[in-house]
Formats: sequence, structure tokens, C-alpha cells
Amino acid sequence: MVRDEDAVREVNARFYRALEAYDAEAMAELWAHESWVACVHPGWEIVRGWSAVEASWAAIFASASRLRVSTDELEVRVSGDCAWVICIEQIATRVEESFYRSRAQATNIFVRRDSGWLLVHHHASPMSEAAFPDATSTVQ
Amino acid sequence: MVRDEDAVREVNARFYRALEAYDAEAMAELWAHESWVACVHPGWEIVRGWSAVEASWAAIFASASRLRVSTDELEVRVSGDCAWVICIEQIATRVEESFYRSRAQATNIFVRRDSGWLLVHHHASPMSEAAFPDATSTVQ
Repeated sequence: MVRDEDAVREVNARFYRALEAYDAEAMAELWAHESWVACVHPGWEIVRGWSAVEASWAAIFASASRLRVSTDELEVRVSGDCAWVICIEQIATRVEESFYRSRAQATNIFVRRDSGWLLVHHHASPMSEAAFPDATSTVQ
Repeated sequence: MVRDEDAVREVNARFYRALEAYDAEAMAELWAHESWVACVHPGWEIVRGWSAVEASWAAIFASASRLRVSTDELEVRVSGDCAWVICIEQIATRVEESFYRSRAQATNIFVRRDSGWLLVHHHASPMSEAAFPDATSTVQ
């Protein structure tokens, strides 16, 4: 039997794989399709409701940029049929031939359904560049 | 009997009252005193564990500034013994004779204990000034 924490950790990892792959279908499978789910992309206003959240991912996936995201300092908490993950997103954005690095602080909330754990809230906020000296460097 | 949503809404309101009052004791009563609670103040690196979270509030309360915080677009979700609140914090910071306005997007997570709902995670991130033209204006 998979421990709850491990199951949540795996769903959280699938979320970042779907993000990197710009895979709208995989992203849709991860979320609860409810009017009350919400999503804060780094630097965006909050997006509320699955339809709007889905559209926001579509807008990101339609852009010419590509993302690589690894997670640091990841912590999983489970409380009954609810769970949340706290982590730092290390983001590399490729635009044409250049890469830009940034960091975001993420809070991801999941609820347990018969089908497994579903994402209901994603809040990612840009982190200060001060603690990340290479943030503005271009690596190629 | 108080509905769960109303009980969570009230604890969330107490959190902002404690913040405005710079009341360390009231703040301490609101949080679970656990090693795994976490707090992201707007623009700060994440703070983990009650001792560090308590120290972060002490640092804020020790400053010469004073805060007024009202909440907008507040939404409460309860899932079993876990709950979360999403809201926009409208913040007025007073430094000497000047007020500065800012906004933050907040995610607050609570768990239910015998004593009531306790805060276990606060994530507040600065919002773009673009949607808030008065953000940099100085009133008073």
C-alpha cells in the first residue's frame, strides 16, 4: 500500500511533468474540475474555476517559450482527505535561443477522491532574485 | 451550531485582526505550534516551523510601521478537518506620517483540532501594481 504522503508526492511530480511537457490533457487529469478550484501563476492575478484555470494553462502552453522546472525543499502534509505540498520551483524558461532562470514559492493543495488525489489549488509566487544571484543571467 | 465555513472565516478574520493589532499573543493562539507549519510573508523567503514563524511575526511587530489590512474576494473551502481560505489582502502600511498601499494574494490553510481551527500555512505574495493604479500613491 502506497503511503498517502508518497501518493501526494507522486501526483505533485506529475503536475510538474505535465507543466514541462505543455501537456494540456495530462494537466486536466490532475485537477478537480470544480467551479471553486483556483490557480495563481507567478506574477498573475488569481484564476478561479476549472474553466478559467484550464484556459490559463492553454495560454501558457500556446506560448513560444518552453519551461524546465525542478522542485527544491519539498514538503508534503496530509490531513485526512486533504493534503498540501510546499516547494520551491526552480524554473528555466527558454525563449528562442536563450534561457532565463527564476524561482517561485509554491503551495499546492490536493483533495482525495475515489480516483485519487486531485489538485484544487496552486499558488506560485515569484521569489526575490536577491537570494539567487544567477537569476538574470543568460546561459544559452 | 456554527457552520464549518463560518468558523473558518471567523478564525481567518481573527488572524488579520491579530496582524493589524501587532498582537503576538493573539497570533500565537491562532497557529498550530508544530515543526511543519510554514509562512510566506509578502516578498520574504519561506519560514518553516512554529518557532521560526513566531520569530518572523515578532520581527514584523517590532518594526516602526503599522498595518491596516482588509480582505477582498475571500473564499473558504472546507474538506473534512482541513480548510483553506483564498483572499486578496488590501494592505495600508503606515511609516511615520505616510501610508503606502499594496496588495497581496493569500492562501491560508487551517486544520481542525479539538480546540478549533488552527492556522498551519500562510502564503501571501505581492500582487502586480498594474491592476492597482493607486498602489504607489501616498495618502495622508
